[in-house]
Amino acid sequence: MNSLLSLPHIRTVLARLEDTIIFALLERAQFAQNACIYDPHGFPIKDYTGSFLMYLLHGTEKLHATARRYVSPDEHPFCAPLPPPVLPVLDMPSPLAPTTEDVTINDKILAVYITDIVPRLCREGDDEQYGSSAVSDVNALQALSKRIHYGMFVAESKYLAEPATVQNYINAGDADAILSHITTPEVEATLLERVLRKTRMYCRDIEAADENSYKIDPQLVVDLYADYIIPLTKEVEVHYLLARTSSD
Amino acid sequence: MNSLLSLPHIRTVLARLEDTIIFALLERAQFAQNACIYDPHGFPIKDYTGSFLMYLLHGTEKLHATARRYVSPDEHPFCAPLPPPVLPVLDMPSPLAPTTEDVTINDKILAVYITDIVPRLCREGDDEQYGSSAVSDVNALQALSKRIHYGMFVAESKYLAEPATVQNYINAGDADAILSHITTPEVEATLLERVLRKTRMYCRDIEAADENSYKIDPQLVVDLYADYIIPLTKEVEVHYLLARTSSD
Repeated sequence: MNSLLSLPHIRTVLARLEDTIIFALLERAQFAQNACIYDPHGFPIKDYTGSFLMYLLHGTEKLHATARRYVSPDEHPFCAPLPPPVLPVLDMPSPLAPTTEDVTINDKILAVYITDIVPRLCREGDDEQYGSSAVSDVNALQALSKRIHYGMFVAESKYLAEPATVQNYINAGDADAILSHITTPEVEATLLERVLRKTRMYCRDIEAADENSYKIDPQLVVDLYADYIIPLTKEVEVHYLLARTSSD
Repeated sequence: MNSLLSLPHIRTVLARLEDTIIFALLERAQFAQNACIYDPHGFPIKDYTGSFLMYLLHGTEKLHATARRYVSPDEHPFCAPLPPPVLPVLDMPSPLAPTTEDVTINDKILAVYITDIVPRLCREGDDEQYGSSAVSDVNALQALSKRIHYGMFVAESKYLAEPATVQNYINAGDADAILSHITTPEVEATLLERVLRKTRMYCRDIEAADENSYKIDPQLVVDLYADYIIPLTKEVEVHYLLARTSSD
């Protein structure tokens, strides 16, 4: 098996992405919700129609595309069109099987982030920190997208572990059976417990006298994992497997 | 006094930037040194002469400049030229006094970062994670630059607290007297102690059995503060005061 698909490797990547996600959410949580940055009519932007966040996200992705970020099989852009790389493109064969359709769900991640995550994470109102908020959003969205789409690697690894069983579900188009097959409650419980321990450490307010004073409620990050990040990852896994075609 | 110059406000900003800096350094520390990204001849980049890091840093600053980042008196770009904002420019009067010269030291920050900080922070060698390394570098450099140039706010606040004394040193062009006046060893000791406690929390390896297992040596971040970040901040303070002209 391609080493990128070994479960220990995947677990290491996902655990490390947890740190990035928690840091990014904590950075964003410094600022108010600043709803105007998500409003397509929030700011007049020269030669651009869309929200300030989308302006900054698309601009960042254009730059990163020229630096060949999206050539990597574990990176998926939110925006289009994007320019070609200005660097020589590496030969980076994907360990994933071909799929019959695009299984990325960045539109959904973006909607969930703006509609559900920011309002739960940030205090209400407007503190005029639009640039800092949107830069934090871009970092958080990139980390969330990478983590959630890593579901394709997880799914491929699970497929290769039991190809006959999973192929039967795929042939039957049985999304529920696939979802049940890829769901391991004890792994999810371990993950949530680890996210809680990490968030407690990363968001402790060290200036406060109280040992248990936190910048944000650590349970909130656990809830964001349970309510959005894990379910969206599994959604990617199911999409990927249903669209999977033989790579032979 | 302008509230942006109150010492409690400045201390809050600096303490919060500590978190950003430590997070950014920890992100960078995941990857090997990858010296080729700092080498102007490390990669052939279409229509660009310079290192991969500078390509990404300048591209990021161009985007952020259009989003009016550098209109803010506490933000200073590394690169030039930069395009004008595409957003309406806010009326953001600076609380700083005018200066007779540019007191920014981003060239020096960049040199110290590449020559001293990355080699101490990252393991030797090349892991091919060039994009992720350079994106982390950009985040770290932006946070370091903001923190170090906040020295201007610190210096202005200290000037306003004792204008006659400091003006005498300025009139005499006495950099040593200014440096001595702005140096408060007990404040620095408190800061370093807080950085150590924070870094211990943020970089603990939660997967390890040992309570004292860290992803990087926490003392390293303290040393980076003591060796570079604090001295460079004081350098900005001295430059600013020597170049300060009356704002009346």
